[in-house]
This record gives sequence, C-alpha cells and structure tokens, in this order.
Amino acid sequence: MSTLDQAALDTLFFNARTHNGWQDRPVDDALLKRLFDTLKWGPTSANCSPLRIQFVKSDAAKARLVPLVMQGNQEKVRTAPVTAILGMDMAFYEQLPKLFPHTDARSWFAGNEEVIRSTAFRNSSLQGGYFILAARALGLDCGPMSGFDAAKVDAEFWGGTTVKTNFVCSLGYGDPAKLFGRSPRFEFDEVCKIV
Amino acid sequence: MSTLDQAALDTLFFNARTHNGWQDRPVDDALLKRLFDTLKWGPTSANCSPLRIQFVKSDAAKARLVPLVMQGNQEKVRTAPVTAILGMDMAFYEQLPKLFPHTDARSWFAGNEEVIRSTAFRNSSLQGGYFILAARALGLDCGPMSGFDAAKVDAEFWGGTTVKTNFVCSLGYGDPAKLFGRSPRFEFDEVCKIV
Repeated sequence: MSTLDQAALDTLFFNARTHNGWQDRPVDDALLKRLFDTLKWGPTSANCSPLRIQFVKSDAAKARLVPLVMQGNQEKVRTAPVTAILGMDMAFYEQLPKLFPHTDARSWFAGNEEVIRSTAFRNSSLQGGYFILAARALGLDCGPMSGFDAAKVDAEFWGGTTVKTNFVCSLGYGDPAKLFGRSPRFEFDEVCKIV
Repeated sequence: MSTLDQAALDTLFFNARTHNGWQDRPVDDALLKRLFDTLKWGPTSANCSPLRIQFVKSDAAKARLVPLVMQGNQEKVRTAPVTAILGMDMAFYEQLPKLFPHTDARSWFAGNEEVIRSTAFRNSSLQGGYFILAARALGLDCGPMSGFDAAKVDAEFWGGTTVKTNFVCSLGYGDPAKLFGRSPRFEFDEVCKIV
C-alpha cells in the first residue's frame, strides 16, 4: 500500500483545524455527494454502515436547526454554508441482508437492544471520523459540534424514522482569522504503550 | 485548503480493504508512535481525546489477548504483527485542565455519568476512525474487530485503570490473497438528503 506525502498528511491532520467562522463561499451539492461516496468506503462492523445524513443547506432548514443548538453554536450554524446532521439508524440491521449478503448477520442483532445501541453508536461515530477526514481530503473545512438538544433535533429532522442524531458538523471554507489557538495533544507515552 | 489527489484517496478509501491475513513483515515501534502522533490531531469534543491504546506486539501479550477474542478472530490476532486495543478513558475529563486550558471544561462532565459515557464512546470512536485512516495513510493495513469479550479484555489489559475497551484493530501488511469480496455500500440517495 502506498503512503501519503507530507502535504496530504498536513491537509488531513497536521494543518487542519476546527473552524468557527466561514467564508461567504457556497458548497456545491455535487461535492456533498462526492463526500458521501468517499467516506462510505471506510470499514464498519459487518459493513453495517449505520450513518444517515441530512445536509442542512437551505435557509428554511437552517431556521429549523439553529434554535436547537446551544447558544454558542447558533452563529456557526447560521453562517456555515452547510451543517450536516449525522444520525445513526437504530434499525441498521434490517439492511444487513443487502450490505452483508454472504451470511445471516441480521440475526446477530435483532432483539439484542444493547448490542444494537453500541454497534450503531460506535460505527456511526467511526463513520463520523471518516466524514471529517474525507471532507478535508476534498478541500472542505469542518466544524463538528455536539452541543445541541438531541431530542429536539431527533423530533424535528428524524421524526417518524428509526434514526437518532449522533452529532452535527458544519462544512465550508473556513475563515482563518476566526480560528482559536490550537489546544495541546498528549504525547505517545502518556496514553499509549507497546506490550 | 488543498485537496488530496486520486492516489491518496485510493489509499485511504477506494482501494483500502479490511484485512484478514497478514504478510510475515514486522511493524516498527517508530511507526506505531508516528501513527499516534498523526491521529491525535483529529478533532474531539472540547479536545477531550479519550482514546488510550495498547499495541499488542510481543508473543506474551498476544497469548493474553488471543483467548479473549471470538474464535473467528483468534487466528487474525495470532498472525498479525500488531493488534491495537483501542480503549476509552472514562475519567477523560480529569485531563481537560491540560487539554482545554482556557475554560473550566472539567465541570461540564464531572458527576454527569450519561454525558461522560456518551462523550467517551463517541469521541474515542471518532479517534478510532482517525486511527484507521492514519494507519492507511502511513502505509499500514487495518483489520478492525469488535468480536471479543470486552469485560475480559478490560480486566486483563486495563485492570486498575479507568479505561474501558472500545474495539481492537490488527495492523500490518495485508495478504491480498486472503481478502474477501468487497461488500456493497449505499447510494447517496438511500441514506442522505440535502434539505
């Protein structure tokens, strides 16, 4: 397998930042489709792929989402070209005959609420990680947020479905002038060991 | 922000596969350190960075892990050069004065068990996504697995700590001859919409 060069690593990890302010520059629908058609290839347990996405882009949809996020996040959602609501389908296992056709994987989950919950949450979050890095790979900046009223977002955007909100993430072209200073990270030896 | 070229996208997403068989080729400790020092820059909520990792590499450590994974995963762990145990520190918020020093973020979590649990699980899983893609970016193949006895892995590897296991992931150089056929993914319109 080939490796990425330093410029690509910089785009994904070293120079990428969580953005709070956005340039007045739209994001094409075609790019949102390309984002999903990239991130979807990342691995999930039994290919369960529980992530469901609503890309909030119109003024009407933003007006529904803004009051449901924490006050400190409202201006970010209002000014971002797009804010994605990343949800998890709690009935993801009903899709396994299609997604994992070579065995009866549906039976591993059906009726086992604790395994359903943890699998949906773990794997939709993994897919959230793929989402953020795929967006950066395609030239977008991200502003992920977990400060919102999940019950209200569920009711407003996923009502009548089996989907629950995991987190939300603004997308666009960030304004570097509005970045905060970068927070420190752990050193390897503080949180890892080789045994 | 610059974009990645097709070769880099292929390495991360389009051509990368979950591996089940491994070449007899070791993984240097320096590369494991570089892996962490890359993935750690991915964003987490309030920079909480709950991921903790044990890289199981020695024969002695493999002998402790192999019996705790499902039968179908035992040969994979036995033959992989390294299997990482990705854990989440349920006391992650005690590190926030260091990781998020500009405000009292510790108080957002302390005593609120449900927020602690969901934040640790969501963000360590996000970091798991960064782990997989950073490993691929650095030329490694991955074999993530959630089929193991979590209580036993917790007791054996994280006993006496506040860390719980999230999932495990073998690392190395995959044997393409042992790949399964690739499973299908959703089309955009099946699971996404632009509103």
